Formats: sequence, C-alpha cells, structure tokens
Amino acid sequence: MKSRAAVAWEAGKPLSIEQVDVAGPKAGEVLVRIVATGVCHTDAFTLSGADPEGMFPVILGHEGGGIVEEVGEGVTSLQVGDHVIPLYTPECGECKFCRSGKTNLCQKIRVTQGQGLMPDGTSRFSLNGKPLLHYMGTSTFSEYTVLPEISLAKINPAAPLEKVCLLGCGITTGIGAVLNTAKVEPGASVAVFGMGGIGLSVVQGAVMAKAGRIVVVDTNPAKFEMAKLLGATDFINPKDYPDTPIQQVIVELTDGGVDYSFECIGNVHVMRSALECCHKGWGESIIIGVAGAGQEISTRPFQLVTGRVWKGSAFGGVKGRSQLPGYVERYLAGEIKIDEMITEVLPLERINEAFELMHAGKVIRSVIHY
Amino acid sequence: MKSRAAVAWEAGKPLSIEQVDVAGPKAGEVLVRIVATGVCHTDAFTLSGADPEGMFPVILGHEGGGIVEEVGEGVTSLQVGDHVIPLYTPECGECKFCRSGKTNLCQKIRVTQGQGLMPDGTSRFSLNGKPLLHYMGTSTFSEYTVLPEISLAKINPAAPLEKVCLLGCGITTGIGAVLNTAKVEPGASVAVFGMGGIGLSVVQGAVMAKAGRIVVVDTNPAKFEMAKLLGATDFINPKDYPDTPIQQVIVELTDGGVDYSFECIGNVHVMRSALECCHKGWGESIIIGVAGAGQEISTRPFQLVTGRVWKGSAFGGVKGRSQLPGYVERYLAGEIKIDEMITEVLPLERINEAFELMHAGKVIRSVIHY
Repeated sequence: MKSRAAVAWEAGKPLSIEQVDVAGPKAGEVLVRIVATGVCHTDAFTLSGADPEGMFPVILGHEGGGIVEEVGEGVTSLQVGDHVIPLYTPECGECKFCRSGKTNLCQKIRVTQGQGLMPDGTSRFSLNGKPLLHYMGTSTFSEYTVLPEISLAKINPAAPLEKVCLLGCGITTGIGAVLNTAKVEPGASVAVFGMGGIGLSVVQGAVMAKAGRIVVVDTNPAKFEMAKLLGATDFINPKDYPDTPIQQVIVELTDGGVDYSFECIGNVHVMRSALECCHKGWGESIIIGVAGAGQEISTRPFQLVTGRVWKGSAFGGVKGRSQLPGYVERYLAGEIKIDEMITEVLPLERINEAFELMHAGKVIRSVIHY
Repeated sequence: MKSRAAVAWEAGKPLSIEQVDVAGPKAGEVLVRIVATGVCHTDAFTLSGADPEGMFPVILGHEGGGIVEEVGEGVTSLQVGDHVIPLYTPECGECKFCRSGKTNLCQKIRVTQGQGLMPDGTSRFSLNGKPLLHYMGTSTFSEYTVLPEISLAKINPAAPLEKVCLLGCGITTGIGAVLNTAKVEPGASVAVFGMGGIGLSVVQGAVMAKAGRIVVVDTNPAKFEMAKLLGATDFINPKDYPDTPIQQVIVELTDGGVDYSFECIGNVHVMRSALECCHKGWGESIIIGVAGAGQEISTRPFQLVTGRVWKGSAFGGVKGRSQLPGYVERYLAGEIKIDEMITEVLPLERINEAFELMHAGKVIRSVIHY
C-alpha cells in the first residue's frame, strides 16, 4: 500500500514528504495507522548525523499513537481497531532481560532493530523499489507503519491519540525515571537539569512522587514558567553564577545537596554536575540525556565512595506492554499532564518546521497530526 | 602517661618507635590500650605521601582491638575493661547522616578528625612537648590511644582482640560492601578485582550472600589459592589476555556480564573495567579502593543509561557501634573467617617489616601484637 511519509534521505538535510510503499505485516507483525506523532530530540540527533548508529535513507519518528489496521499471522494479542502506542523498547516477556524483573530493556529484537530492519532482517518500506530503513523499530513519521507485535502497547481507546502519543517517549521517560529508576520518596529533594520535554516530565514525576523540593536548572529562563506551573519550587540559571560550579550552588541551596538529580540534556559536563550536586551519603543521580558519540562522563571516585550513586534510565524503566497502558489511564485520570506540553500542532507536510521550532527552543513538544 | 608508639615523622620514611606522651581522656573521650593492630594499605598510602590529606608528624594505624583503660567525663556507654574496636567511621546517632538511615558516614567529628585532632581541636599525643597528630581518629600504632566515645564499638570480650582487630577495617569493608552496599542475592554472579585483604573479604561476603559464581581477578596468580579456599569459583589473570580488555573477557565468561562487581585496588582504570564487566540492564559496580589524589573515573554514559549502576562503599556501609559487634559474633560463630587472613604476626618494633611485606605482596594481613 501507499503511505504518506517524511523520509530522511541523508544526514543534515530536511525531511522529504513522499508517497512510500508499505508492505503488509508478516508473521508476528502488525500494520498500524499512525494518527499523531511527537517530534523528539532523538529524531533530530539522528537526522543531524551525530548519531553513530544513524543510517540513511530512513523513516524517523518514535513517539506515536495509532490504530491497528491489519495483523500478521500468529498475532494474538492485538486485533484490527485496537488503539496502540509504538514501543522502541519492546517487551517480549521471554528473553533473559524481560524475565529478570530488573530491567525494561528487552533484547529480543535488538540486533535487527538497530540495523533499521524488521526481525526477519528486511524492511517493509520502499520507494520506487529502493528499500527505506525503519527507525527505532517504530518509524512513526509514516502514516502507515509496520511493527512487531511485541513493540506495541494496547491502550484505552478513550484516550486521544494526538495527546497520548507523547507517552511513547518523552513524558514516560521523565516520569518513569522518577518513579521506577530513582524511586523518589515523599519529601525528598530533587534537581532537574534541562527543561525540555523530558526535564518537565521529570518535574511532573517528582510532583507525583510528592518530592518536597524540586530545583530546576536551565540556561534559558523562559523555560521556568512551565516548570513552575508543573510544580517546580526553585529555579537556577547557571548563567547567573559565572564563577561558581553549579553543583556548588545547588549544594549550598539545599543544605548539602539533593537526594536525587536527573540529567535531561545529554551533556557529559552537566552529567558530572548532576552527580556532584547530590547529597553525600545517599544522593542518586540519574542520566536520561543521550550524549554524543564517543563522549565520556568522569568524576573523582571519592564522589561514589562517599555514598553517591550514578545510574541511568532508558524509557523511564517502563515496560511498555505491561506498564504503559497504566500511564494512559493516569493521563485520563488527570494525574499525568500531556496537553500542557503540546505547544505546536502541525500537519505532516510541515514537519520540518517542527524541527526548526525545537532547535530554536521555542516549543516543548510539537505534535504532527496526519 | 608514656606509651610505645610507631611515629611517622615525615612522608616516605620508615616509622620510628618512640616513647610518646599520651594525655588522659577529656570529656566524651576514652583511653584505650591497644592489644593488636592490623597494618592496612591505607596506612601505607598516607605514609607514602600520596594522600593529599596526609599530615605529619602523625601516629598512624586504624585497624585495632583494645581494652578500655580510662573513661573521660560524661562517658556513659563504655567502662574500664570493656573490649573495643576503634572506628574511623564513628556513629553518633544524632547527626543528619546517622538519622538518615541511608548511610554509615557519620559526620559529627569529620572536620577535626580530618585535621588529625580530637573533637576539641587538640591532640592527646606529644613527644618532648611537640604535638603529634592523630590519624583517622584512631591512631592504633600507639599502645595507648585516646578516642571519642562515639568512635568505639563495644564487642564481646570472648573474641580474641589479636584477630578481631581486622574487623576494624579491611574484612568488614569487604564483607559489608557485599551485604550492605550491593545487597548481593543468592545465585548472583560476582566479579572481584584485586585479591588483597579487602578483595578476599569481598569473596567471603559473596559466599555468605550465597552468590552463584565468584570471579576473581588479579595479576598475581599466587593470590588465587586463598581466594579459592574462601570460595571463589573462577580465576582470571589479566596478563593472560594481553590483547583483550578484561571486561570483555568477563562478559564472555559470564554470558553477558556479572550481576555485581567490586573494585578493591584503587586503580581508576580497573574501576572502569569493573563497571563495564557488569551485565546490561542491572549490573552494579561498587568502588571500594581508594584512588590517588586527583585521579578520575570515566566511562561512556551509555553504560549507565543501559542499566548499569556505579556505587561506592566506605567501611562496607557498616555502622560501627550498632553493627560491628554483630560481625564479631559472626566471627565467633565461624561464619566470618579472620585467622586465615593473618599471614604474619610481628611485635611493634618490627612494624616497618609489615609494610615491606605488604608492598612485596607477600602477606594478606600482618598483625602487630603489642
């Protein structure tokens, strides 16, 4: 079948709107009509060419909401008409990782997904006979996309897909990092570095966890308004402290440091600050941001020996098929705010504007409506 | 009063046996007669001059066992004749850290202890009127030493002090890192880097935790015999793999990496290997070794984002006054092995030999009997 799609032909170039060919779902696969998709920094990161694992030509997009259009042979957990959120972190329930009970990082289809292919090693996308690669196993920048059954979370059809699509990445990542990875307890102090979609979602998560103090850090003070609306209590612009390491500013502000910190930028220097602003004896720092290729974090080991803990979080530690539907319910119950995060709605044809707005720091999230 | 003591007059020089003057205990202090003391790498580190916080002249030693000789005004929890183990990590029970329930790093007397002084800012040691500094709040290389009440754990007098003195540092540090910091569960796989006194104690702790596989790593294969005796199951000499990073060797050996790793050397490069040999999704690495001044650890943040956790441990996370007596009981019950770790017993007059034997890698622990 034909599908409208935004194709990334090569790194560093705008996306190109094309009518691509989408092959039907093979065994264990599902054809989904995407209703809406967010545009995330990770898409931009790959498009820029900085992602060492980026490959082209490819159909990007990983923050979608859609409806099952057709199921392949052997698919039992989904049927036509089901509302779904694509998962770049699948959940097979069978692999060593899924069975561990300790991680959401299902590895069942990791190799082919990393190669931009379906589990059988081929692509469902093509244009004029030339194959186009999948991206993160999701490719939500195509109106019709094919995914493995294990890469789809079935959600409550009452939820508006043009909103809950954002639970496919950023919002869940931020909230999950607080609730699953850090397990912030009531009354705890929290520092959040970077007030993009992830950082704001960390603020939300901290409020849900009943954190006592939520310190947000950004060099763009325009971001503080939304952070305050969501529940942040303290606002720090590092530019106001040109001569003091920001970790020291936070340690002084919080009587020894915060209980938990979150890096939501992908800057290895900020990752260090985030660790070192944690309280001696127990402070934990969670890396969420994705750093550039080859970049490394560093600190003095004394920081860890004196009780700080350095962790990371991917998709908020959330197991997509079993836990994401619950996030949708919490949105419907008013506990998770999504609408406030959507500052721009655009048709697919204007998707490049969404990237421009993001780079300009003018939006929290743009959502593409097909 | 007069006391035999090994004095470190300056960095890099052998200790000098002297008759020093020891002032009686002031309020909240206790005079202890040390019966035996271990000689630890940390003493050697400070003596070498590499410790940026090292000061001279000083009476080193922090792994002792002794008997209360006199108590100062207001001391209520100890009396003359009590058997005690000096604590370089005190436990006041009152400070923010003690009350947190999250750490053993009591900060009540940290500043003065770091300055080599008693809490009132003065020293109890002198020679010919010239003050000598305390070390780690313990100074067990003096037959008579004065400590704050909060720096003494009262133990079962049935325990031989010339053995359980080693619970004052190395053995507790290793076992505690497994049981308290990592909380290794039955069946887990463990890697231990460095088979000194700490590393061997980590092996002991892993056995106590019923770990399923205990991989030990050392460039001196002579260390493997004792490790095997204590319960290690796999033995890796990095020199046997000149062309392969040791983390890769361990990942292949253990089908993806270990559940927990422990760095017991103080080498920042080994700390990285220890992190990176951990299993994706959940592996935790615990830094125990003390690195040289200014040295830093580093890794790619992706290591953490994909689920590994980097931690540290000081004194095994053990709260000295409330938990160390239990370690003594476990020794008496045969659960903790100490006798096997003592490969040399020397009188105070031969303490410099103990340092030489340690540097030559010929002993696990030397114990000085006064």
